[in-house]
Amino acid sequence: MMSHKSTRPSIAVDVMGSDKGPSEFVRALIHLNQTDELHSDLILVGKKRLLERLIAVRKSKIDCSRITLLDASQVIGMDEKPISALKKKKDASMVKAIELVKEKQAQAMVSCGNTGALMAGGTLRLRPIEGVDRPALAAIIPSKKKPFVFLDVGANPESDPTNLMHNAILGKQFAQARLEIKNPKIGLLTIGTEQGKGTPNIIKTNALLEKLEGQIDYAGFIEGFQLFDGTVDVVVCDGFVGNILLKSSESLFGFIGETIKKELLRNIKRKVGAVLSASAFKDMKSQLNPDERSGAPLLGLNGNIIKSHGSSNAIAIASAIIAAQMVVDCDMLDSIKSDISLANQKIEA
Amino acid sequence: MMSHKSTRPSIAVDVMGSDKGPSEFVRALIHLNQTDELHSDLILVGKKRLLERLIAVRKSKIDCSRITLLDASQVIGMDEKPISALKKKKDASMVKAIELVKEKQAQAMVSCGNTGALMAGGTLRLRPIEGVDRPALAAIIPSKKKPFVFLDVGANPESDPTNLMHNAILGKQFAQARLEIKNPKIGLLTIGTEQGKGTPNIIKTNALLEKLEGQIDYAGFIEGFQLFDGTVDVVVCDGFVGNILLKSSESLFGFIGETIKKELLRNIKRKVGAVLSASAFKDMKSQLNPDERSGAPLLGLNGNIIKSHGSSNAIAIASAIIAAQMVVDCDMLDSIKSDISLANQKIEA
Repeated sequence: MMSHKSTRPSIAVDVMGSDKGPSEFVRALIHLNQTDELHSDLILVGKKRLLERLIAVRKSKIDCSRITLLDASQVIGMDEKPISALKKKKDASMVKAIELVKEKQAQAMVSCGNTGALMAGGTLRLRPIEGVDRPALAAIIPSKKKPFVFLDVGANPESDPTNLMHNAILGKQFAQARLEIKNPKIGLLTIGTEQGKGTPNIIKTNALLEKLEGQIDYAGFIEGFQLFDGTVDVVVCDGFVGNILLKSSESLFGFIGETIKKELLRNIKRKVGAVLSASAFKDMKSQLNPDERSGAPLLGLNGNIIKSHGSSNAIAIASAIIAAQMVVDCDMLDSIKSDISLANQKIEA
Repeated sequence: MMSHKSTRPSIAVDVMGSDKGPSEFVRALIHLNQTDELHSDLILVGKKRLLERLIAVRKSKIDCSRITLLDASQVIGMDEKPISALKKKKDASMVKAIELVKEKQAQAMVSCGNTGALMAGGTLRLRPIEGVDRPALAAIIPSKKKPFVFLDVGANPESDPTNLMHNAILGKQFAQARLEIKNPKIGLLTIGTEQGKGTPNIIKTNALLEKLEGQIDYAGFIEGFQLFDGTVDVVVCDGFVGNILLKSSESLFGFIGETIKKELLRNIKRKVGAVLSASAFKDMKSQLNPDERSGAPLLGLNGNIIKSHGSSNAIAIASAIIAAQMVVDCDMLDSIKSDISLANQKIEA
């Protein structure tokens, strides 16, 4: 394939398997060229001939000196069963992009493909780092005050207290890398009950996190009603709660939007009002569902994997690539390793 | 106290301990008199002298023939620790209202007070019905198509598969009583994972629910992204997930509202538009956060307890009283007992 000896960081991009197809990735390259934020090399993994053609048409707008192509004959579809797809499709773009990270030819990979396959494939090929049992998928969520890191949003549906404690460290590291917060405040998601704050699992996790005083800025419990207040920079929960919460919030957001639209169309006066204030809704939507903060990392593995949602547009893809660049730039992986090792020592002590 | 021998159903109402105070309950009585939906007797439990004064001023607008007053010298505050408050305040309005249900002087009780105290007090005094380990708190949630019953929203944060199976039965019964759906479709909330749909707990619950074929209309799994689509009439989950989801949805709703408001005030054109379309937002709000569907039952106990939120207005209080009347009218308690017993037999078979 390519020789890759530059000192610039290198990011593998799986350009297949997303809803909008590889041409959206080419648009992302144009966007990155315009914003001038990219100082990494990119290895685009996918149907090489198709990519060559797509890039050729737009080459005046793309910095081709940064780009290498790697052919992959297969694509994992959105609805394929992860494990069987990984077994059958050894030459899938996603698999080859992960392989580049494993072989250290890339320092990170980005994909908009099948989330289950990416989590399973990433975990199987890259393995969790020493001291971590299970990786966690993190998302960046907007709030009244400022965006926060929310994890786990689905990698590990059955987290024990140690997993949750590790999630706190992983979330802290990603908040430092991506949101550039020096000392992120960390909250543990729970409910108020007669007995106190939550389940035995949560009580144990709380005790572990309190032991990490000095290493993390632990703010204690966060209840559901505080979630979008933005009082902390990292919210920790298990992958079952996190996934349901993330998905149902998107569902609620869509439902509210639909209801507003229906109400605004109910009479002429409202319609005129809606036309005059239309830009407000656009701005609101991009504030609450920002493509600029796309890029959910699968944290805790020996390599950087960044997931962008299946229907990512060029802005979202560019943002995920920049997220990958940021975690590489600040050596997040090394920081995670030493931070986890320190935490495990403290807990065992 | 009172003699209560009428054949009309009797509902105990704890008029203390809510954010808006007992005068809001008097407004609810006026509303109920206007709408003519009430055919039950009401026993108002609280500071009797205060109530007498409040009612005297409005007595022309209230059907006083339906109302009895029961004095209670104490009030459990919103922020009190449930168990210790219950121990200390034997003469609290909430406690006495529950007691009326226990002594069968009332067929249901309604309270806007401290949720934890209501759940603990209700469970301790009324006890779970035979065959049920733990009660579940249910809420009615709006969706794109139609409202649905969502449970458990916080009574039992650690549900095992049997608890969750019972939640399905309890939710079915409440959907029949309150939403008047003959054969409610039931969904089990979960996430998609590499292994399938969710955790071992969820897989086991799914197997139990499949065994109840013929007894319930089980529609299988529901993922977070489908929650507000309204594809089912009852959504089942544990009290940890349910509470976080309910509270965070309210938090998200508030956050979206604030963001829209901020964006609409950004310039003159938008402001004019906002004025013209203001009624649309009001209608949207009352559609998504309807006071008309207030009243969350604590299901699975030997007696009907209906919780309305702490800041309930007159409409919400009236709606909770009507919810109580509906579950009494259709003998929900008896139906629950036989339905649970049948389910337990099927599972053991």
